[in-house]
Amino acid sequence: MADFNTIAQQFVEFYYNTFDQDRNKLAALYRENSMLTFETGATLGMSAILEKLTTLQFERVKHQVATLDAQPSNESGGILVLVTGALLVDEEQRPMKYTQIFQLMPDGAGSYFVFNDIFKLIYG
Amino acid sequence: MADFNTIAQQFVEFYYNTFDQDRNKLAALYRENSMLTFETGATLGMSAILEKLTTLQFERVKHQVATLDAQPSNESGGILVLVTGALLVDEEQRPMKYTQIFQLMPDGAGSYFVFNDIFKLIYG
Repeated sequence: MADFNTIAQQFVEFYYNTFDQDRNKLAALYRENSMLTFETGATLGMSAILEKLTTLQFERVKHQVATLDAQPSNESGGILVLVTGALLVDEEQRPMKYTQIFQLMPDGAGSYFVFNDIFKLIYG
Repeated sequence: MADFNTIAQQFVEFYYNTFDQDRNKLAALYRENSMLTFETGATLGMSAILEKLTTLQFERVKHQVATLDAQPSNESGGILVLVTGALLVDEEQRPMKYTQIFQLMPDGAGSYFVFNDIFKLIYG
């Protein structure tokens, strides 16, 4: 089995590619007990999270990852991931900086789902 | 028992006050299985973490928290905390932006210790 750093890198690449191409497909990464804090709003469960992610006020978005760090988060195979990066939305030319954390949990079938997800823009 | 948001806020206030006043006293917050990623360096265990934190290349430091978000991280009472903020070191007048995550775990004696800790400066 791949080590946690490799899994974190593969996850992050997949997550942002999917986010930038078709946010609806992010549904597969969440479960009914998944949590998302997006800026100031807290959301619980795959349906509410998908509703939140697909109704954000932009049409096009492109994430650029600057740093990615991971650590094992428990003895059950969980992985904690911290990303810093920048994103460009729609016609905007200036990227916005952001930080995002994920806790990935094994799904028991050889893959992972997102248990925790917190996204914050970095201002100033 | 206090809810996870209150615990996260109390922890973060205590952590940065202690960091800014006497980094040696941070030892009490880590255990032998605690992990710290500070910028690019990964460290395991209380002794190595304390060595890292007390040999950083500045004399004085002041953290200013801008945002703090928390979520439950498992069914055992763990708490995931994401902080964004700024820090001033020594005579430097311009604050540096940073982001830091903690996973707090219950210590079985009514308190918490830091299991995961990842600190990154935000450049540009």
